Amino acid sequence: MTAVVPNIHSVRELAERYNTWGKWGADDQLGALNHVTPEKVRASASLVRKGRVFSLALPLDETGPQTGSFGRYNPLHHMLWDGGDIVAGAQDHIQEVRYTDDAAYIVLQSSTQWDALAHIFHDGKMYNGLGPEHVTSRGAAKNGIINTRDRMVGRGVLLDIARWKGKTWLEPGEAIQDTDLEACARAQGVEVGEGDFVLVRTGQIAERRHLGSWGDYAAGPAPGLGISSADFFCPRDVAAVITDTWGAEVQPNETPDVFQPLHIILIVNAGILLGEIWDLEELADDCAEDGVYEFQLVAPPLTITGAVGSPVNPQAIK
Amino acid sequence: MTAVVPNIHSVRELAERYNTWGKWGADDQLGALNHVTPEKVRASASLVRKGRVFSLALPLDETGPQTGSFGRYNPLHHMLWDGGDIVAGAQDHIQEVRYTDDAAYIVLQSSTQWDALAHIFHDGKMYNGLGPEHVTSRGAAKNGIINTRDRMVGRGVLLDIARWKGKTWLEPGEAIQDTDLEACARAQGVEVGEGDFVLVRTGQIAERRHLGSWGDYAAGPAPGLGISSADFFCPRDVAAVITDTWGAEVQPNETPDVFQPLHIILIVNAGILLGEIWDLEELADDCAEDGVYEFQLVAPPLTITGAVGSPVNPQAIK
Amino acid sequence: MTAVVPNIHSVRELAERYNTWGKWGADDQLGALNHVTPEKVRASASLVRKGRVFSLALPLDETGPQTGSFGRYNPLHHMLWDGGDIVAGAQDHIQEVRYTDDAAYIVLQSSTQWDALAHIFHDGKMYNGLGPEHVTSRGAAKNGIINTRDRMVGRGVLLDIARWKGKTWLEPGEAIQDTDLEACARAQGVEVGEGDFVLVRTGQIAERRHLGSWGDYAAGPAPGLGISSADFFCPRDVAAVITDTWGAEVQPNETPDVFQPLHIILIVNAGILLGEIWDLEELADDCAEDGVYEFQLVAPPLTITGAVGSPVNPQAIK
Amino acid sequence: MTAVVPNIHSVRELAERYNTWGKWGADDQLGALNHVTPEKVRASASLVRKGRVFSLALPLDETGPQTGSFGRYNPLHHMLWDGGDIVAGAQDHIQEVRYTDDAAYIVLQSSTQWDALAHIFHDGKMYNGLGPEHVTSRGAAKNGIINTRDRMVGRGVLLDIARWKGKTWLEPGEAIQDTDLEACARAQGVEVGEGDFVLVRTGQIAERRHLGSWGDYAAGPAPGLGISSADFFCPRDVAAVITDTWGAEVQPNETPDVFQPLHIILIVNAGILLGEIWDLEELADDCAEDGVYEFQLVAPPLTITGAVGSPVNPQAIK
Repeated sequence: MTAVVPNIHSVRELAERYNTWGKWGADDQLGALNHVTPEKVRASASLVRKGRVFSLALPLDETGPQTGSFGRYNPLHHMLWDGGDIVAGAQDHIQEVRYTDDAAYIVLQSSTQWDALAHIFHDGKMYNGLGPEHVTSRGAAKNGIINTRDRMVGRGVLLDIARWKGKTWLEPGEAIQDTDLEACARAQGVEVGEGDFVLVRTGQIAERRHLGSWGDYAAGPAPGLGISSADFFCPRDVAAVITDTWGAEVQPNETPDVFQPLHIILIVNAGILLGEIWDLEELADDCAEDGVYEFQLVAPPLTITGAVGSPVNPQAIK
Repeated sequence: MTAVVPNIHSVRELAERYNTWGKWGADDQLGALNHVTPEKVRASASLVRKGRVFSLALPLDETGPQTGSFGRYNPLHHMLWDGGDIVAGAQDHIQEVRYTDDAAYIVLQSSTQWDALAHIFHDGKMYNGLGPEHVTSRGAAKNGIINTRDRMVGRGVLLDIARWKGKTWLEPGEAIQDTDLEACARAQGVEVGEGDFVLVRTGQIAERRHLGSWGDYAAGPAPGLGISSADFFCPRDVAAVITDTWGAEVQPNETPDVFQPLHIILIVNAGILLGEIWDLEELADDCAEDGVYEFQLVAPPLTITGAVGSPVNPQAIK
Repeated sequence: MTAVVPNIHSVRELAERYNTWGKWGADDQLGALNHVTPEKVRASASLVRKGRVFSLALPLDETGPQTGSFGRYNPLHHMLWDGGDIVAGAQDHIQEVRYTDDAAYIVLQSSTQWDALAHIFHDGKMYNGLGPEHVTSRGAAKNGIINTRDRMVGRGVLLDIARWKGKTWLEPGEAIQDTDLEACARAQGVEVGEGDFVLVRTGQIAERRHLGSWGDYAAGPAPGLGISSADFFCPRDVAAVITDTWGAEVQPNETPDVFQPLHIILIVNAGILLGEIWDLEELADDCAEDGVYEFQLVAPPLTITGAVGSPVNPQAIK
Repeated sequence: MTAVVPNIHSVRELAERYNTWGKWGADDQLGALNHVTPEKVRASASLVRKGRVFSLALPLDETGPQTGSFGRYNPLHHMLWDGGDIVAGAQDHIQEVRYTDDAAYIVLQSSTQWDALAHIFHDGKMYNGLGPEHVTSRGAAKNGIINTRDRMVGRGVLLDIARWKGKTWLEPGEAIQDTDLEACARAQGVEVGEGDFVLVRTGQIAERRHLGSWGDYAAGPAPGLGISSADFFCPRDVAAVITDTWGAEVQPNETPDVFQPLHIILIVNAGILLGEIWDLEELADDCAEDGVYEFQLVAPPLTITGAVGSPVNPQAIK
């Protein structure tokens, strides 16, 4: 951190410092998930001590945070067959059994989600130096979320920044810096290391529940990560960074001339996946109670070919 | 099993024998998942020995098995923003960063999936005796898949029936009976017990890959479970039953007067969830190689409120 | 009209008085559109005098009036192939020609629309006495909009109530009664008769344009028809009634114990179709200018089988 | 026509000969629809003699011709509220009235349709010399179908090629040349002139009905227009060309090195809109019966902003 206002030059410097293009080969589409070795997977399972499972997903329905702006809508759920059809006799040609069926239209990043490496570009490139011609209307031919289909298993570490600061939640605009992350981890008695999935809690979901309305949660001002957080995450070789806000980063951004600068540093350059809109409230309460901030995390994306993000129902298993 | 052709009476007898309505209270919406206690979750994590993760999901795209019949289509994936837009300058109003975004229309049971307890009715009732008025065009108010959001974690056991029979795959119409399941488990040296997620492999996905076409895989003739399989699953208090076919059951069904009789016995009466169209090929090869047929299974559904099924990317972790 | 507050009894009385069930046979699914005979079609064409065409549809896009409440969203438009794909070379396997393609998800009554006769029920019945079992998740087997596929052609008459009252627009809550309709027609020098499509302008779309926001236009307070308007429309044997508001009727309704009472009288009982959210502004200006309030109206619905409504781009041809 | 096989050079020659870029101004987005003057609209109404209306649209449902190839699916129709919900009491909070509601997902060119001028590119340009940057994932900023919202009204002329040739239908691969169009018009006693909407019947829809299956109708071999037809349409200044096949042109195309060459000549260069998959059967029977091959045509597109095509329920009024 420095006293001067960070800008595109600060971002480029961090991006260059933590760039991993080519590190795992020219064809790599996994980025920092390469840090999650079988040994890490095995070790993460040993963190399951009391057999309690936490679902970190919001309900995927009309009560979600989206408003339609930026073309992002809450999910639309439709019944193809329902109980009324059964009553009306519409399935009476079937012998004995009756069934219901349904479909949903889901904007893939409208709720609890993973960003794929193909989600972000800077200077005409996404992770590993690939150009925009790889993401057409047919989807992402490279760096799609489907590459991670069996890679979202490992050690999760919760850094409950709000609680560590003695707050119920951070305020919109409140930035989380590398020094905050370090101090919080130390206070919680947990180390963050290679291949970890780091979950950073701001408490904004709790705030909006308290307010009784999402308001401008989706795409509005938010507490979140400052760009110095890269100095915490990247040297530690973490696998992924997750928050309980729409865009992981503090909003308004610290950089007046760059929108979502950490996306450029982490996703495009370091190849670190971001998870957003994860509901960390129940998990955080449990961690505060038993003092254990590490757990097995299993957060598999849908296997939609070409998708640049995915809804996810992450499982934190303690 | 008996020599006579089973019919609705056989089905009713099994349904009554294994009915669990009320067992976990009048308000229960979990059924046999109640068998998965924290202790079971804890124990399942201890099965992770080599840190290898298997994704058991088919790609969720236009190459899927659906044909549109029964209103079931393969997923439609749409880009809201793609690389071409970036090239065309459509995001030049954003400072530095560029992004892609997407959406999908998914028939929830079109590919690798969970059936919810609200998916099946018989004699006007679903699990726990609830009527069709609980599943309207707004979705399932009861027994929806969302209830299982943090319950799909436990011990998985693969019963590779095809391999046990010395076949590459079973043929359509080939039924798997309780005695087959017992003998296969014994031959594999694995026990099936309370709270287990039992994965039964017929090899039909391998067959269709070999043929180079799904053909009538979705809703057509299939190898699968006979109704006597209930005598294997129910007394053992399993949590869920999963197959690599569209509908779990042998097709044509053994019962000329009942369509999908095991759905009536297992889902409606026993409250046992079914998983369908799971791709067990890679996992089965590994199990055959190391002789270990048990593993941690984490298969969280999407949290779509009111949904009667869910796509899933199941993770088998060995 | 009467001084007492109208209620369900007033509604039932009007409904019974103007009920047409059986009038055109037990199998009829057209209702008052039966009044539009070939002779009426022929005569309506003779109203085309200056060859000017007015499209009465709002743009079908994200700027529409819906907010998502009641499950009604503005249309979602997706490109399946766009210019960026062409630039990226995604169609270079095609010889010479390049193309774009698209799809849309449309809530059928979200914008300028026709209500089908299957849209409204009262006392368990829709038009011609048919029960709810005819409208399942598979759509309306009876009284669907597709029946009108070649019947939406005839004489249109605009009754510009706002202008006749000397106002730019009527206020929410301002009711239009039978006497208003009569006086307005007389003042405009136009007669309303058998088989006519009557377009009633409140000016609410102009108001919301002036305000710069739809606000609560969709499903909120609105100027509109009072139930006495049935005494104007029904004896004259009109074919359809159209307004520039979301629900045709004055909101709040005059009847404290009946929501949308005129829908019960006109659609369910009289079999008169309603058109809603039609943009009458440009047409009204022209009528005021040339003093001609009649024209050929051609407003064909989409031919969606089973649909209970349809978006429409109505053409008023003068 | 010439004896040599036409190729890209033949196409370029015709494209250049009939190019109209700039003819109606650099900002024009209507092309040949500019020929439809108010006088033409007025005159077309005078063709209504017996008051009979023909809907030329196929049902928009799962029975349509699409198979999912090229990402084109038949429409998906979903009920948001249906009769079963009413029976189940799901609307009992509403006073007296009950309603049904629905939505549809429509690939805009999956059935009876208009191609927009933004639908086709050649050599990096669409009509009036505009580049692909005008059609992003947000839709067509130029040459979209919405520009024609009030322009699809005029004189329709049916050229029933199949009947004129004494056939029930033309065979796939059978080309219709300029001389055929001329001879057919002469035989039918009808002239084709400025601003006309010309409907060319091959009978392929009748053939597929006879066969009981669409087979490869969508995107497969088809009878249709040869490139010489441009010599018929363009000098006559027609407004639009319509057929009863998926792509208007004979398939396989006459040009081994150009796919859909007439799209390049007519849409991109001449600015003539194409209508496809119009059901001309009932209309053709009527024209054969009364010998009248001209009529008023009213075929308004949906007003979807940015769309590059539109479903349409065309009305031929005689």
